Amino acid sequence: MRERGYGMFVHFGMNTFIEMEWSEGKEPATTYNPTELDCEQWVRTARDAGFRYVLLVTKHHDGFCLWDSRVTDYDVASSGNTTDVVKAVSDACRKYGLEFGVYYSLWDRHEPSYKAADFSGYRQFMDEQLTELLTNYGTVCEIWFDGGWDRKAEDWDIPHIYELVKRLQPDCAMGVNNSAYLAESNLSENIYGSAGPDEMTGKHAVKFGYFPMDFRLKDPYIANWNDNKIYNIDGEDHYLPFEHTICLSKKWNWFQKQDVMETRDIDELEELFYRAMANNNTLVINVPPDRRGLFRQNEINALMELRDRVGINQPNKKLMHKMVEKPISLGCRAKASSEWDANEYGADRAFDGGLYHRWASKEKTGWLEVELDREKTFERISIFEYMDEALASDGFTRKRVNRIEEYTIDAYNNGKWETIYYSTEPMGDCKVINFATPQKAEKLRLNIRGAKEAPSIYEFSVYEHKAK
Amino acid sequence: MRERGYGMFVHFGMNTFIEMEWSEGKEPATTYNPTELDCEQWVRTARDAGFRYVLLVTKHHDGFCLWDSRVTDYDVASSGNTTDVVKAVSDACRKYGLEFGVYYSLWDRHEPSYKAADFSGYRQFMDEQLTELLTNYGTVCEIWFDGGWDRKAEDWDIPHIYELVKRLQPDCAMGVNNSAYLAESNLSENIYGSAGPDEMTGKHAVKFGYFPMDFRLKDPYIANWNDNKIYNIDGEDHYLPFEHTICLSKKWNWFQKQDVMETRDIDELEELFYRAMANNNTLVINVPPDRRGLFRQNEINALMELRDRVGINQPNKKLMHKMVEKPISLGCRAKASSEWDANEYGADRAFDGGLYHRWASKEKTGWLEVELDREKTFERISIFEYMDEALASDGFTRKRVNRIEEYTIDAYNNGKWETIYYSTEPMGDCKVINFATPQKAEKLRLNIRGAKEAPSIYEFSVYEHKAK
Repeated sequence: MRERGYGMFVHFGMNTFIEMEWSEGKEPATTYNPTELDCEQWVRTARDAGFRYVLLVTKHHDGFCLWDSRVTDYDVASSGNTTDVVKAVSDACRKYGLEFGVYYSLWDRHEPSYKAADFSGYRQFMDEQLTELLTNYGTVCEIWFDGGWDRKAEDWDIPHIYELVKRLQPDCAMGVNNSAYLAESNLSENIYGSAGPDEMTGKHAVKFGYFPMDFRLKDPYIANWNDNKIYNIDGEDHYLPFEHTICLSKKWNWFQKQDVMETRDIDELEELFYRAMANNNTLVINVPPDRRGLFRQNEINALMELRDRVGINQPNKKLMHKMVEKPISLGCRAKASSEWDANEYGADRAFDGGLYHRWASKEKTGWLEVELDREKTFERISIFEYMDEALASDGFTRKRVNRIEEYTIDAYNNGKWETIYYSTEPMGDCKVINFATPQKAEKLRLNIRGAKEAPSIYEFSVYEHKAK
Repeated sequence: MRERGYGMFVHFGMNTFIEMEWSEGKEPATTYNPTELDCEQWVRTARDAGFRYVLLVTKHHDGFCLWDSRVTDYDVASSGNTTDVVKAVSDACRKYGLEFGVYYSLWDRHEPSYKAADFSGYRQFMDEQLTELLTNYGTVCEIWFDGGWDRKAEDWDIPHIYELVKRLQPDCAMGVNNSAYLAESNLSENIYGSAGPDEMTGKHAVKFGYFPMDFRLKDPYIANWNDNKIYNIDGEDHYLPFEHTICLSKKWNWFQKQDVMETRDIDELEELFYRAMANNNTLVINVPPDRRGLFRQNEINALMELRDRVGINQPNKKLMHKMVEKPISLGCRAKASSEWDANEYGADRAFDGGLYHRWASKEKTGWLEVELDREKTFERISIFEYMDEALASDGFTRKRVNRIEEYTIDAYNNGKWETIYYSTEPMGDCKVINFATPQKAEKLRLNIRGAKEAPSIYEFSVYEHKAK
C-alpha cells in the first residue's frame, strides 16, 4: 500500500446527474444517463497523471450500483446507460497497468432491507454485493467502506466483513471511513488518533470504532507530520497507515454537477502530496466524471500540472517518499505578538505539525515567530491560513476568503531582522514560497501588516530542502 | 547591445535618504550617508542573478553626483560617505565580468548655471561631467540620458553630446529617454513610434525628439510584439532597438525608501523578460540599494527566482532571444460579448501585441474570444488585466486592484466549448497559465463570470511553446 501511494478517487453515479450532493435513493434509475461514457479516458488520465491506482465509487449512500447487481434493480442495468462501469474501469486498469480499488457505502438509502427491524437481511445483501465486487472484477487492491455512522458500529459486523474480504481477495487492504475515531476512550473529543488532526506519539492502547482493518481513514482530515502508525489494539501492535482523501475541486464537491468546478490551487495539492509521501501515508484525489461520463479538461490540466510539479511524470517512476523531509520548524519554540487564547490558539499551534489546531491573533496586525536551528538553511516555506466563508458573486455558492492582506517574512540573523519576502496578495488555500538560494535564520517571523479580521494560521512550515 | 540584453538598473543617491521620489537639489550633501555601503554586493548580486550589465544612476534630477566631480561640490566627496560609487561599481563590474553603463540626468535642479539666462554655461558643465564619467572609469557600454523634457529638445544640443560620447567611448551606445517621442509628426499623440505603446510596421519617416542616438528609450512603456526597429531619419535607415526600463518594485519606486518594498510578481517579470528577448530588445530592471547601501534580501530573492524561471542560471549562458516565439494569437480575429467603445476599446485591442490599448467590456460579465489556427497547439497563456487603484491598508499607499473575480478559459473544438482553466483568484499584475500538455482550440475564450467593475484586458497572449 505504501508503494501504491498515490490514487485517483472516482465519484460517479446518481449524484452526478442531480444538483444535490447526496441523493436519497428515490431518483429513478434512469436519471443516471451518461451520454459519452468512456471509462478508458478516466484510467488513461490517471496513468498519464502519475496515479498508481483508481479507487472507484461502486455504490454511494443512495444505493445506486455502478455494476449489474443480482440483488437489486437500482443499478446501471436498469438505467439510461447499461455499461457495467466496475467492469469497464477494472478492465481499463489492467490495460493501463494500474491497480484497482473499490469504494462501497455501508449506508444504503434505497435498499428496503436496510430499514427492516431485523438488520440481518441487509447484512446478507451486503455479503452478496461484496462477493460480486470481489469475485467478478479481477484483483482488487483496496476496499474503502463509508457511511458507517448511520448505525451503531457493531451493527455492521466488521470482523465478518473483514473475513469475507480476505477470503475473496487475500491481498486487498481494507479501510473504514472514520475508523480513526476512538469509540471508547477518555481522551478529549479533539483527539482522533493520529489519523485525525492531532498528534499521538509512541504506541497507544486505543480501541478503534471499526476493527479489524488495514489502514486508517478519516475523511477529510490531513495527518499530522508526526503521524503515529503503530497502535496497540487488544494487546497487539498494528501498523496502520493513513489514507488521505481530498477533492480536486476547491469547493469539496465529490460529484460533478452541471457547472464546471474550480480545482484547488496546485500549491496546495503539491504540499499535501509531499505531506503524504514524506509521512509514508497515501494520498487519494477525487476526480469526478461529468454527465457525459468524461473528465473535464480543466481538471485534467490541473492533474498534469501537479504531476510535473511533484516530478512523477515518468510512468512507473517510484514515488519518492522522502522527496521532502519534515519541516525544520516542527515543534520549535514559538511566540506571537498576541494570542486569542493561550491554551487553544497559542503560537505553538502553528508549528505542531497538524492542520487542525491553529494560532490566532487577538489583533488585526501582529507577528508569529519561531526559533530555528541556526545551522540549518531552508529553501521553502508553506503557510496554511484559516479562512472565512463568503458568498460568491453568483449569490449562493460559498467561497473561502483570506483574512491576511499584507505580510512579510522576516529573518533574524546576527541581531537584526531582515525581510526576505513581501506580499500584498492573498495566500489562497495554501501559500508556498520557494527560495532560489538557501536562506538562513536564527529566528523566522511572519509579520502581518494588514488583515480584514484577526489572522489565524493552521500551520507554518519551514523546509530545509526544496521538493523534487 | 542585443547580446547584452539583460541589465540591472541601480537608482541610488540623495533620494534614497528622503521620503520623496524626486528631491529638488536642496537637501544638504550630508543627507546622503550610507552606513554599510558595499557596491560589490550589488554587482555580485547582478552577476548571480544573470544580468549582463549594471546601469548606474550617476546623477539624478537633484544634481547630486555619485562621484567626486571637479565642477560641483554637490557630490559624494562632500557627503556623509565619500566613497566614489561610480568607481566602486565600475571596478566591481570588471571584477565580476559584467559590463558597466551610466545613467546621467540632463535636468539638474541643483546646479546654478542650469537656470542662468545663458544656457551655454550648463552645457559646458555637462561636457565636463560627461568627460569625467567617460574618461575615468574604464569602458562604458551604454549611456542613458534622462530629464530632457524640462527644456526644449534643441537646448541640449544632442548632436554635440553624441559626438563627445563617441569620441571618448567609441563603443558606448547612447539613448535619451522619451527619444521615441515624435517631436514633429502628423500622427496622433498616442503614436510614440514603436518604442512606445503602438505598433508601427515597415519603415517610417519620422523625426525623433532627440537625435542622433543608438537605441530608443521611453520609460516605462513596453514595446509592441511587432516592434519596428528600422526608422528612416533624414533619408537614412537606422536600426534602433528599444531598451525596456522597469522597476523590481511593484509600486514603481525607483529609489529605495525607509520601508521595505514589495516586488512585482515573478509571473509578470518573466513575461516581460520573454517579450524583450523574443523581440530582440533589451530589458533593464531597477534594483535600488537601501540606506545601508545594500540590496534588500527580499529583492535579491525575487531576482534569483526570476533567474531560475527564465533559465539563465548558468553564468555567461547566452540569452536565448528565441526562448519564446511570438504569440499565435497576435492579430487574430477577435470578438467580445460587448465593447465599451468599438473604436477605442474593441476586442481586437487585446490581441494587438501591445500593452497600451485594451479591450473594455460594457458589462461586468462577458467574454472575449479569439480565432486561432486550428493546426497549432498551445501551452501557455498570459493575461494583462487593466486594474484600478485603491488605498492600501496603511491608509495612504496606493495599490492596484483587479476587477475580475471569477473567470474561465474555454476552448472551442468540433462544435463545442469546453473549459480548460477556471479560477476565482485575482490575476495580479499579469496572469500566466501554463499547461503541462499541449492544448488545441479553433477558438479560445476568456469568460468572465464575475467582476467588481466592467473588466478590461490590455493583452491576451496565447503561446505555442512553453518558455525555456
